[in-house]
Amino acid sequence: MEIAELGEFGLISHLTKDIELKNAETLKGIGDDCAVMQYAADRKVLVTTDLLMEGVHFDLQYMPMKHLGYKSAMVNLSDIYAMNGRPRQMTVSLALSKRFKVEDLEDFYAGLRMACEAHGCDVVGGDTSASLTGMAISITCIGDVAADKVVYRNGARDTDLICVSGDLGAAYMGLQLLEREKMVYNEQLREARQRGEKPESLPPFQPDFSGREYLLERQLKPEARRDIIEALAKADILPTAMMDISDGLSSELHHICKQSHVGCRIYEERIPLDYQTAVMAEELNMNVTTCALNGGEDYELLFTVPLTLHDRVSAIPGVKVIGHITKPELGLQLVCRGGTEMELKAQGWNPLRR
Amino acid sequence: MEIAELGEFGLISHLTKDIELKNAETLKGIGDDCAVMQYAADRKVLVTTDLLMEGVHFDLQYMPMKHLGYKSAMVNLSDIYAMNGRPRQMTVSLALSKRFKVEDLEDFYAGLRMACEAHGCDVVGGDTSASLTGMAISITCIGDVAADKVVYRNGARDTDLICVSGDLGAAYMGLQLLEREKMVYNEQLREARQRGEKPESLPPFQPDFSGREYLLERQLKPEARRDIIEALAKADILPTAMMDISDGLSSELHHICKQSHVGCRIYEERIPLDYQTAVMAEELNMNVTTCALNGGEDYELLFTVPLTLHDRVSAIPGVKVIGHITKPELGLQLVCRGGTEMELKAQGWNPLRR
Repeated sequence: MEIAELGEFGLISHLTKDIELKNAETLKGIGDDCAVMQYAADRKVLVTTDLLMEGVHFDLQYMPMKHLGYKSAMVNLSDIYAMNGRPRQMTVSLALSKRFKVEDLEDFYAGLRMACEAHGCDVVGGDTSASLTGMAISITCIGDVAADKVVYRNGARDTDLICVSGDLGAAYMGLQLLEREKMVYNEQLREARQRGEKPESLPPFQPDFSGREYLLERQLKPEARRDIIEALAKADILPTAMMDISDGLSSELHHICKQSHVGCRIYEERIPLDYQTAVMAEELNMNVTTCALNGGEDYELLFTVPLTLHDRVSAIPGVKVIGHITKPELGLQLVCRGGTEMELKAQGWNPLRR
Repeated sequence: MEIAELGEFGLISHLTKDIELKNAETLKGIGDDCAVMQYAADRKVLVTTDLLMEGVHFDLQYMPMKHLGYKSAMVNLSDIYAMNGRPRQMTVSLALSKRFKVEDLEDFYAGLRMACEAHGCDVVGGDTSASLTGMAISITCIGDVAADKVVYRNGARDTDLICVSGDLGAAYMGLQLLEREKMVYNEQLREARQRGEKPESLPPFQPDFSGREYLLERQLKPEARRDIIEALAKADILPTAMMDISDGLSSELHHICKQSHVGCRIYEERIPLDYQTAVMAEELNMNVTTCALNGGEDYELLFTVPLTLHDRVSAIPGVKVIGHITKPELGLQLVCRGGTEMELKAQGWNPLRR
């Protein structure tokens, strides 16, 4: 179905008609000038927003719309957890060119709502308009947290332990894999055109992802770590500093150290890696530690806890202590497998510099 | 200066370095995974968001960056007032192609911050990334209102008076004027190229805006009507329904009538018009009432009040009673100057249908 048949208001009602509001804090969702919420006075309110552009943040050639909706939501949910909060409300604005159909939007919303439902977040605002060129996605997520439990980036102190959830670098390896298969496919298309064949006449493209499913999932369907936030609360651990790893571990460590006015020392051998990440890096002739440090899009949590909590934090499944906070004059150091030390450079994802 | 020289984080710090947070509700602005706020339990929290795309929502050929920043903020501030709220926090995300310079961004932020400062709103989040094509602007505004004073679109009741602030249609006429001068200029460019001259060799273009300054201002520098919200509060009037006029009066009346399950009757002769709007419509051979009903971008307030408040609401400068709410079966009617009645159709701005 063509989007123009429904128009803006028709499309929004179509996409949002059966949305239910589940949080007591949500008083009014889609349909007025603003969404309306009410929070208890002992809660702090968190807000985060992301603007995602086609061709820069996502590639529709290998990103299905449903996954795109899911991931767009997840990226924002992750920012709320990174403050030790719980997501409550989300607004989503899309700008689309004429090549999209209503069914594409349905897929996007299905993915977005699946992510929101899994994390108890109400969709309270939706807006769809035209784009002359690529697709743009703007998402805002609102969350809350007990007033004395917000965790900022600036609370890390000398001797604190540096912890990471999950494993790192897999999302970046998934991206490399997708880019490689895309090149193979585009090359097949080019050759077919040279032979005077139509692209439709080619047999369906069979990308080779066998044994790499985990890498793909990390890139296409990341999961915000609510489980870690819950496990920390259950273990009665309040991190001194925390953020999510979206641009790469080294870049995020720089943020925490700069804002906390401290240095850090992490150990290469302790950086958590999945087996598939290591194999893929080997195959691409890349250093797997570099991928884990600078890859980005892992959406794992990076946090610091007082040294005295070593045993308690180590007992949480999926959390690994990778080093510790130092005095600021010691800088940011990576202790390599061989024992040599090197300065940790922030080389994370930076779309404006490229 | 090239944006790439600063990179994403450098650019954000450069643009936001001297931002002060003024509202007690704002606890943390730019620099963490989320902005952090705290509201009293007797306040309701409002959130609105807009995604603006180059070529669809704005044209950089005649929209200076400073005005663009100002207007982008104002559009969102207006949505907060439309709920009878006060704006408190704003986040802004930009996506830009390489043709922009740091100075362009400085201008945009200068305009945005001017609007925010005038309305007591803190800029708490900023994000800048790359775009492969046009510019995209995503703004989210958060506000608050006493819990018993939120005004929705769905509270209009039979016999309520329909009121409008300011005058209508001028922003649309300003757009027509700018489009006309753009065509004249582009024609001069085309002719110069045909003569083999370089565009730079042309004398500076002198658009003819004399006597039309008000129309330009309404299009390029709209003002959200905080003054009306304050005047209503001072007169102890709580509207039964309210929204801002962004898509055109007729479209907004349809929203209020649909959500309130009522009809309405408005009088053509009472629709507030500026003299310049009428002159420009005449010149363009357009019906001025059609422009006022369907033009959009006026950012005036449309609201309903109980009939008993007629004298009190009429005494507010800049507010005009244009009709009244009726039973739903009477539909939406426009009483023309000659006394004939016609059905009011929603023909407001719809970028997806065009």
